Amino acid sequence: MTPGPTPVPERVLTAMSGPIIHHRAPRFEAILADVREGLKYLYKTKKEVIIHASSGTGAMEAAVVNTLSPGDSVITVRGGKFGERWAEIAAAYGVNAVNIDVPWGQAVKPAQIEEALASHKDVKAVFIQASETSTGVGHPVKEIADIVRKKADTILVVDAISALGVIPLPVDEWGLDVVVAGSQKGLMLPPGLAFVSVSDKAWEFVSRSTLPKYYFNFKKEEKNLAKNQNAYTPAVSLIVGLREALAIVKEIGLEKLFDRFAVMADATRKGAVGMGLELFAPDSPSNSITAIKAPSDIAGGDIVKGLRTVYGITVAGGQDTLKGKIFRIAHMGWVDRFDIIMTLAAVEMTLKNLGFDVKLGSGVSVAEDILKNLE
Amino acid sequence: MTPGPTPVPERVLTAMSGPIIHHRAPRFEAILADVREGLKYLYKTKKEVIIHASSGTGAMEAAVVNTLSPGDSVITVRGGKFGERWAEIAAAYGVNAVNIDVPWGQAVKPAQIEEALASHKDVKAVFIQASETSTGVGHPVKEIADIVRKKADTILVVDAISALGVIPLPVDEWGLDVVVAGSQKGLMLPPGLAFVSVSDKAWEFVSRSTLPKYYFNFKKEEKNLAKNQNAYTPAVSLIVGLREALAIVKEIGLEKLFDRFAVMADATRKGAVGMGLELFAPDSPSNSITAIKAPSDIAGGDIVKGLRTVYGITVAGGQDTLKGKIFRIAHMGWVDRFDIIMTLAAVEMTLKNLGFDVKLGSGVSVAEDILKNLE
Repeated sequence: MTPGPTPVPERVLTAMSGPIIHHRAPRFEAILADVREGLKYLYKTKKEVIIHASSGTGAMEAAVVNTLSPGDSVITVRGGKFGERWAEIAAAYGVNAVNIDVPWGQAVKPAQIEEALASHKDVKAVFIQASETSTGVGHPVKEIADIVRKKADTILVVDAISALGVIPLPVDEWGLDVVVAGSQKGLMLPPGLAFVSVSDKAWEFVSRSTLPKYYFNFKKEEKNLAKNQNAYTPAVSLIVGLREALAIVKEIGLEKLFDRFAVMADATRKGAVGMGLELFAPDSPSNSITAIKAPSDIAGGDIVKGLRTVYGITVAGGQDTLKGKIFRIAHMGWVDRFDIIMTLAAVEMTLKNLGFDVKLGSGVSVAEDILKNLE
Repeated sequence: MTPGPTPVPERVLTAMSGPIIHHRAPRFEAILADVREGLKYLYKTKKEVIIHASSGTGAMEAAVVNTLSPGDSVITVRGGKFGERWAEIAAAYGVNAVNIDVPWGQAVKPAQIEEALASHKDVKAVFIQASETSTGVGHPVKEIADIVRKKADTILVVDAISALGVIPLPVDEWGLDVVVAGSQKGLMLPPGLAFVSVSDKAWEFVSRSTLPKYYFNFKKEEKNLAKNQNAYTPAVSLIVGLREALAIVKEIGLEKLFDRFAVMADATRKGAVGMGLELFAPDSPSNSITAIKAPSDIAGGDIVKGLRTVYGITVAGGQDTLKGKIFRIAHMGWVDRFDIIMTLAAVEMTLKNLGFDVKLGSGVSVAEDILKNLE
């Protein structure tokens, strides 16, 4: 129940465990053709989606080095560990970051983006998270896109690593210029693949970009994808699994997936509150992950440890400044209602074991009521 | 029978098809501890081996951006597609490359390196391939290392992507400063992982390096490896497979593996000659891969296609300027004597089908004689 790697469906594991295929063989090219279509469906875009053999961070770096030039200015939203990562990557490449510091646990307000753009006319790109995994916050992507779209010379770059396939992010409809995702979250795959969509507006940035790059090269990848190939040796087994995972997404249907995750997120949040806990981001929660405050006299790490060692359930603790203060339950990818119920039950029992005054079943019963009609 | 991906043993596939493990869980940390030891055995080094989730090219870029600074000068050996890649990466990052152009199919002479170092006193690094996959050439790594070792302010960077675990490259003993490898060659894994060893001398370069980098960061990775973690989400399923592959390497023993590949390479080369074909790199062949000239009146692509469509055997064609002129049979990773015999038999039959005057069995019989006592 961590924010990635999420569980991998049997069907995907089985697909990946077949004999290895050569990445220039016709059989692999046919698989990549399916994958290209599946990614377009997932992203709701007509444009090509770039595939990198890397973790999500690699694709975040790719988004920076392929669109910008040295000395460019950008806006980042530092409201969590991954927002800070955008700022760190910009700094590493000599890009000037105007950092909007948002308290961890809160979403950036669209007006803050508007103001920053107004006072820094030369900003080339706005970098945000659709779902800030470290805090469980969902930032208002659509509203921000509406603002950035009006600026002819600014693109919106969205880290959707823990959001794509979980919450609605229709790339073409909303005008999201660059959207980064990874394989180990909503896509129900092991980690090792990352994806980037690039809008027409962003491709103009790519054609002008002079930041140094080699392995992460959108132009080279796009040229190769047109021939159902990759610029460099792809992670073949993960691509084979990806075709299967994308088939599952299509069979269920994106809209239905979004609805399911919304209900499971709701059940998790209300279940936590029902057992007497406080949410860390009550005002702008992401449907990907729920961050829950540890009771004041219990260390978050003890909850994480108790869940794992006694009940065999892995959740995430807090990162950086939130270490020990929160724990996080993810509800994305291959999870269903009983994963939520089990986890809430285990949290109740763990809290009881740690001496917290919790009524057993108090959270679970709330979740059951929400989940009972989930399709 | 291509130079990667090479076949993946059942045992490794089975290990990888288990349920996904979280990369911060104790169970994964125990696996990474085993992997760290196994990589040290494979590299014959006491130093930590860095692991990246990327293809081999990503780790080549990592070797450049982690050791050098803008304006540094380096020597590259352009004797094939991958030698050219070193030069391309250097150029992409504003590093001045002194390129030694060697005709494709020949090895660089140690004296050429010595001369280039003498006339360019400020060279910070020498970049070579242990096995140039595009031509089937093995460069004289040990002799070059003996030369570079004498220069206090120059390191040797070796692309061993298709060499590690196939031919002897004892890193500490020979004083190889940076050695890059990939998962899909000698290591019998699917592609998606890359490895880099870093000598004490090279770590000094790392501490001074100012080229921009974020995802590929040796310092950050080394710090995390000491805690049995990775800086960014690792390719979990491939790491699980890696532990199994490294266990197989240890069980067989490195020296025995080297001997086996040497005999299989010898059988492939002499088998090809035995059926009336010419080797592309007869003077300095790599034991990883054998490049064979297509007969003058037959297109190399027709041989590759015939092998695949009629006999179900995938070999590699020629790349870039060698397209259509050669075909390449790899003998690395999880291959045994009968893979060599089958492939040679299929080449004979394919040549016959294409109208080439070949005596069936003429190459196979030569190979059998060499392989009959292979342990």
